[in-house]
Amino acid sequence: MSKNKPSLPQGTRDFDPATVRKRRYIFDTIRTVFELYGYQPLETPAMENLDTLMGKYGEEGDKLIFKILNNGLSDPKNVEKARSAFEKVLAGKNDSNLTERALRYDLTIPFARYVAMNHGTLTFPFRRYQMQPVWRADRPQKGRYREFYQCDADVVGSYSLLNEVELASIYATAFQKLGIPVEIRINNRKILAALAEICGGAGKMVDITVAIDKLDKIGLEKVKAELLERALTPDQVAIIEKYLALTGSNEEKLTALKTLFSPPATGGPGINETGTTGINETGTSGINETGAKGIAELEYILAYTTNASANPAANVSANPATDTSANPATDASYPGAPSLIVDLTLARGLNYYTGTIFEVKATGVQMGSIGGGGRYDDLTGTFGVPGIPGVGVSFGVDRIYDVMDELTLFPTAIDASIEYLFFNLGEAEAKAAFGLMQQLRSKGHSAELYHETAKFDKQFKYADKKGAHYVVILGSEELAGRTVKRKDLSTGQQETLSFEQLVNT
Amino acid sequence: MSKNKPSLPQGTRDFDPATVRKRRYIFDTIRTVFELYGYQPLETPAMENLDTLMGKYGEEGDKLIFKILNNGLSDPKNVEKARSAFEKVLAGKNDSNLTERALRYDLTIPFARYVAMNHGTLTFPFRRYQMQPVWRADRPQKGRYREFYQCDADVVGSYSLLNEVELASIYATAFQKLGIPVEIRINNRKILAALAEICGGAGKMVDITVAIDKLDKIGLEKVKAELLERALTPDQVAIIEKYLALTGSNEEKLTALKTLFSPPATGGPGINETGTTGINETGTSGINETGAKGIAELEYILAYTTNASANPAANVSANPATDTSANPATDASYPGAPSLIVDLTLARGLNYYTGTIFEVKATGVQMGSIGGGGRYDDLTGTFGVPGIPGVGVSFGVDRIYDVMDELTLFPTAIDASIEYLFFNLGEAEAKAAFGLMQQLRSKGHSAELYHETAKFDKQFKYADKKGAHYVVILGSEELAGRTVKRKDLSTGQQETLSFEQLVNT
Repeated sequence: MSKNKPSLPQGTRDFDPATVRKRRYIFDTIRTVFELYGYQPLETPAMENLDTLMGKYGEEGDKLIFKILNNGLSDPKNVEKARSAFEKVLAGKNDSNLTERALRYDLTIPFARYVAMNHGTLTFPFRRYQMQPVWRADRPQKGRYREFYQCDADVVGSYSLLNEVELASIYATAFQKLGIPVEIRINNRKILAALAEICGGAGKMVDITVAIDKLDKIGLEKVKAELLERALTPDQVAIIEKYLALTGSNEEKLTALKTLFSPPATGGPGINETGTTGINETGTSGINETGAKGIAELEYILAYTTNASANPAANVSANPATDTSANPATDASYPGAPSLIVDLTLARGLNYYTGTIFEVKATGVQMGSIGGGGRYDDLTGTFGVPGIPGVGVSFGVDRIYDVMDELTLFPTAIDASIEYLFFNLGEAEAKAAFGLMQQLRSKGHSAELYHETAKFDKQFKYADKKGAHYVVILGSEELAGRTVKRKDLSTGQQETLSFEQLVNT
Repeated sequence: MSKNKPSLPQGTRDFDPATVRKRRYIFDTIRTVFELYGYQPLETPAMENLDTLMGKYGEEGDKLIFKILNNGLSDPKNVEKARSAFEKVLAGKNDSNLTERALRYDLTIPFARYVAMNHGTLTFPFRRYQMQPVWRADRPQKGRYREFYQCDADVVGSYSLLNEVELASIYATAFQKLGIPVEIRINNRKILAALAEICGGAGKMVDITVAIDKLDKIGLEKVKAELLERALTPDQVAIIEKYLALTGSNEEKLTALKTLFSPPATGGPGINETGTTGINETGTSGINETGAKGIAELEYILAYTTNASANPAANVSANPATDTSANPATDASYPGAPSLIVDLTLARGLNYYTGTIFEVKATGVQMGSIGGGGRYDDLTGTFGVPGIPGVGVSFGVDRIYDVMDELTLFPTAIDASIEYLFFNLGEAEAKAAFGLMQQLRSKGHSAELYHETAKFDKQFKYADKKGAHYVVILGSEELAGRTVKRKDLSTGQQETLSFEQLVNT
């Protein structure tokens, strides 16, 4: 047996009791919200068949999948196959004679696999949430781990934009319950598709979104340089710059966008002057069709969120004083109404998004996005079951933890590990304490008896370290009188109580 | 991309929403009890360094560990090392150039690793519980999976038998809360050690416990045959048979055991007649010393459990009528008092147990043990930190699930997935429904709006499949009158309510 000092694998973490409690608080809060919205829990195994995972995350992703070595390789009947399989692996391929299984890389592909396997028996739309760890062989660094939790809610089998409205409300409600001030940003991939159509054709979509996605990190000048490198013309880049510069309220942005996506008035000054061929590519004299769809989708969602004064049910329990607010268009009056920010620079790296995209950022702290998601057209096509669209959001639990820690948002109550710590002051005394403790526990109070007789000091120190609320002292004198001394460690206050008083208060 | 029909790795499972809810009910119930007793949650990573795990589970166990292939093997700078490492693996060895990490095989070794790494900062006794999956490359069969959850509570850094008393109470309380009728069996490895001392010496301990452990499965005759095969003499086997045949109440068994472990009265008939040399091995004329210790430990624990009439605090809230019960010695009157059964045939396979051992069986169903545990002397010695004793218990969650399913013990409430299902009967109607739904959700009621307008039938069918409690109908007529029709799907009762009534009742 190894007597080496033990250690943890790089990029993995133990969660001590205080950390588990805080993390659990986050999970419980988000789970409660998911369930309020009719989302159902699903759990899938940590291991998937390697086939299920490979080829789903791009070349770089594939390299980060943790593969599990088959067992029994040294069995004589397996050795030869294993050896040739290994040579294939050294050549960068996979072979089920060496590795048949791998660790889950995200929760989306296992969910797709589940839906594909069970689509005959599921009731659609199927709303599921899933909170489980995933594993990636990324280079560990601050805030990036090789084992981390994902926390996803998706609804599949529905094109309805009501789902987007609900998912936005889930974000708003969950972060409000956690106490984290956030901005929920929204955009639509159809708008980005329209931009691509105008700037060199649909084939430029990936080039454009990849570059725009870096705007936050590298700034406008470098995005422009990258677009030029990616073979866009200066005129096309100028349109993108104009697009990225659109500002104002949600309404103002969308109005300006409609103009940008429409051919200019005949003879007047306009985008056409830049000489781009893209603007009229749609061949109509109206607005770019894809772009118009994207804008309409955004407007539908915004009408449910920032325009709730149009909602006849919204003022059921609203305060009449706020019903006449100066700006009803931006003040949804039903509970959990999200305040969405249209962010046209939002692109989201993942190429499978086809409609609405979301991103959530905590305000007031330096931290990347703490949530994101979007709509996709085809969840399960890769598993032979086409035509299942969906939309989902994800919560970045590790970053949410860091934000809450930085802003000290965790309720102090979740740290309290034990309510009553009984001192152990002799055998008969301990037995009496034990009986009282069992009474308290049966009423839902956590309690502990110091494990052996020891000096007062030592027992006090233990109670203090455990964060006990009360210390209960039951010595020979107290035992004779059937009383205890109960000391509140936070206030220092001490009272003498009868056995009955202790267990009944 | 693969278009194959996807499947799950052998021995792994998806948990659908209803199953997750039931499993969560079990975990939550057990967790609540652990916390009442001051046990703190700990979570460790799924992966451990291979060094941490290898050599801890015996030769057979080592073979069942899932190893993770290192990433980047096809990188030219790794190929040569990997190739020679692979040859070592084919020869049945391990090499960190091929696999550095492996999946957790149980929760005990990761806990030991955690304590060894953190013993300088932990407060002892350290009480932790852990509920996480483990992975074993066992041949899958009914009730045996390659991924399954363990659910352990251990206290380390304490020799006090109060810990055993508490763990027994945890078992009693948890199974009572789950509604599972159980027998909690208890024995002590010191008693088995004494039996070994009497039957051929301490070196026979493993032979004897391994054989006795099979008693349930193979019956007495085969156990005797196995003992003879393992080089015990017929006389020694006769003593073991006598030991296994001890019956009666706990007290009667322990009294008989004391006789069995003591030299016979001079000249009288007794065990000595069998010619064994073991009986007098202790060199005293009294009872075998190890056995006496084991018996005393059992008696200490029993005094706290089945002999609570000696407990001055026990009758604080007890009914006076039961205080004078006919059999106070077997009727502990504090809440959660376990009723323990001394089972001298209980051996537990694991060799690291040194004192108390527990096993829990559900009564009234055919099922193996649903819980087990015991005391060990040295948790962390293998990691270079000697002298940390402990005691722990484990809950077999998969079997507990099966028992509860068979006895239909799950509360029906945990199946209800959604309270209010709103029909979607038009755009304006849906908007109004949405506002009402958000009011209900803000009050903690789960609600869902059908995702699109559709025929009544279709929406009813969906509500039914989702197990909705109420269906809420809000059509154009209702909207005009600011009312809804609410139908209780279980009773079929339908009422017309105003918007206000709906959200306020």
